[in-house]
Amino acid sequence: MKVSYKAILPLGFKANAVSAGIKRSGKLDLALFYSLFPAKAHALFTTNSIQAAPILVNKNHLRKNKNFKAIIINSGNANCFTGKAGIRDAEDTAITLAKSLRIKKEAVLVNSTGIIGKRLPVKKIKNAICGLVDGLSYAGMPKATKAILTTDTFTKTASVKFRLGKCFVTISGVAKGAGMIAPNMATLLSFIFTDANIAQGVLNKALKSAVEGSFNCITVDGCMSTNDTVAILANGAAANLVIKKGVPFKVFSRALSLVCLELAKLVVKDAEGATKFIEITVDKAKSTNEAKIVALAIANSDLFKTAIYGENPNFGRISAAAGSSGVEVKERGLKMRVSPLSKKNIRVYVSINRGKSKAVVYTSDLTPEYVKINAEYN
Amino acid sequence: MKVSYKAILPLGFKANAVSAGIKRSGKLDLALFYSLFPAKAHALFTTNSIQAAPILVNKNHLRKNKNFKAIIINSGNANCFTGKAGIRDAEDTAITLAKSLRIKKEAVLVNSTGIIGKRLPVKKIKNAICGLVDGLSYAGMPKATKAILTTDTFTKTASVKFRLGKCFVTISGVAKGAGMIAPNMATLLSFIFTDANIAQGVLNKALKSAVEGSFNCITVDGCMSTNDTVAILANGAAANLVIKKGVPFKVFSRALSLVCLELAKLVVKDAEGATKFIEITVDKAKSTNEAKIVALAIANSDLFKTAIYGENPNFGRISAAAGSSGVEVKERGLKMRVSPLSKKNIRVYVSINRGKSKAVVYTSDLTPEYVKINAEYN
Repeated sequence: MKVSYKAILPLGFKANAVSAGIKRSGKLDLALFYSLFPAKAHALFTTNSIQAAPILVNKNHLRKNKNFKAIIINSGNANCFTGKAGIRDAEDTAITLAKSLRIKKEAVLVNSTGIIGKRLPVKKIKNAICGLVDGLSYAGMPKATKAILTTDTFTKTASVKFRLGKCFVTISGVAKGAGMIAPNMATLLSFIFTDANIAQGVLNKALKSAVEGSFNCITVDGCMSTNDTVAILANGAAANLVIKKGVPFKVFSRALSLVCLELAKLVVKDAEGATKFIEITVDKAKSTNEAKIVALAIANSDLFKTAIYGENPNFGRISAAAGSSGVEVKERGLKMRVSPLSKKNIRVYVSINRGKSKAVVYTSDLTPEYVKINAEYN
Repeated sequence: MKVSYKAILPLGFKANAVSAGIKRSGKLDLALFYSLFPAKAHALFTTNSIQAAPILVNKNHLRKNKNFKAIIINSGNANCFTGKAGIRDAEDTAITLAKSLRIKKEAVLVNSTGIIGKRLPVKKIKNAICGLVDGLSYAGMPKATKAILTTDTFTKTASVKFRLGKCFVTISGVAKGAGMIAPNMATLLSFIFTDANIAQGVLNKALKSAVEGSFNCITVDGCMSTNDTVAILANGAAANLVIKKGVPFKVFSRALSLVCLELAKLVVKDAEGATKFIEITVDKAKSTNEAKIVALAIANSDLFKTAIYGENPNFGRISAAAGSSGVEVKERGLKMRVSPLSKKNIRVYVSINRGKSKAVVYTSDLTPEYVKINAEYN
């Protein structure tokens, strides 16, 4: 399977974006993805105990409803730590959009990203919804991918097309980063669209598995966000025989994993202030989970990350981070390799001599620019 | 009780330092503390599963031996991740020093701090030991406090003097930081000397309790070191009635806690690249441990630390960090206060509405200078 990075939409989806005036810069800040047909949906959310208002609203919609039609996203304001008023604001957004699209409010997923703790300018959003809906088109994807960004420096899209029987199925995703990225999940929003005809249960299973090996394997700064969401809509427009199990499920699952992994890597590549993309493989662990714990301990070590920034192959810091992970990594049998540090893409290989399992995580270096961006962000 | 920051030694201790040529800069890099009388000793070490060679040697000496006479420390090389050769090097250092002082090698504690993964230049150390011993004096403390430093910008000493019956007892400590500082324990070496006459069991108990509330409550970068050591020598020269329990134990314990807390705070104040000293109090937790977990999650959040550096009162980042700690902190009932950010000393107060317990931790901001120092360190 080949990944394309073009911003395309599967059959039966439209998109659009406008500038609603949430971002002071006047940039695009309100995006809409719309399915012409009722779509099955599933979503995974942050495990932070503080969760943004739109997450609470979406959880409610996913519980009550089976057919989804629209995902609306604003950037510039996270609508988090905004109490009951924040929940009302998220619901107001869904209601206004639902009216405009003549659908149920529960068929809408609402998402926000940006600064935490400030009231959402919901009037601006409501005023912009009419134009947002009017402009929906098959060609609206590039604009929508821009409108969800905050400190990101480039748009992030990935898609895979594959054949199931006589039908072509497309899975296409967008994501935004770029700081407050840690596993479970990375601070990010990602929306995935597919025209596949698929049963709800296996859609959920495929998304969980794809996220586990992608968005849950990246870290920029170890900081877990309050708004993280990965959502998928599957509208069946490809008209394939419904995917339930066997080969069709495996093929779909592989394609979805590929899209998620590419998006996750793009998020790390656009990490705030980053100059390096780092792939850390931990091998010979007792379990995949153990390997991941050690890999993340290294990936989240500020001392390791600054050493990579300085192109300074400091094995001491890698071993110290591995040893502090809680896994009983011993000096004896610990092997480490690092690819040349003058390159932009760095591979770190750590073998811990405890078993046969492996995990790969992705991270970036820690730079003065990261500090600057986050000292000034408000 | 009043803390003095002068570099003084209790009765019956001498110190000295020389430049052995381990640091390329030619600065002082080898320190010796010596007790005229056999001293009881106790030490607490890093919980990292990768431990430096001198820690393994010291653990062995503390197991075999009851009377200690000397602590030797080199800076510039951590003698960690150096395998069996590293252990031989640490033992060689102890043997050479023991011969020169005419004591058992087990009466020596050996310590190293500096870069990880490079062989200790043990010949240089052995050559320097003769001069180091010859120059021992009551006035040698200031030199010795300098010789244990690495990236520290100032020496760290604290002492307390108090009366027990008719005798005056002194507890005096030194410490070094300044990066790779995380609790359990902070990356640091600290040596504490007292002329108190005290039973071994209560000495151990007092040290554990003092470290728990001081060195285990600070974090600079969340990175756990391989060499962390806090050691105490108690030589009985004050000639007080032996401290066993009751009021004398309480007074001694309080004084030791005070010395440790002051040293720990000095370590944070000298954190690499730091411009702010941050005290984080978490209140209304179910237990002290729970309060500490939340406080450390905030203290270790790069986004929180960059916000403080930018003098940007970002409550969203505090709540996101608290929510990601694993403790079920809820938006409702979460209260936060931050003192004016234009000052050098910042107080953060977080109340989580779950119980009655409290903890205080200390940290610094994250600055471009921290990144620069650690990108270039080699």
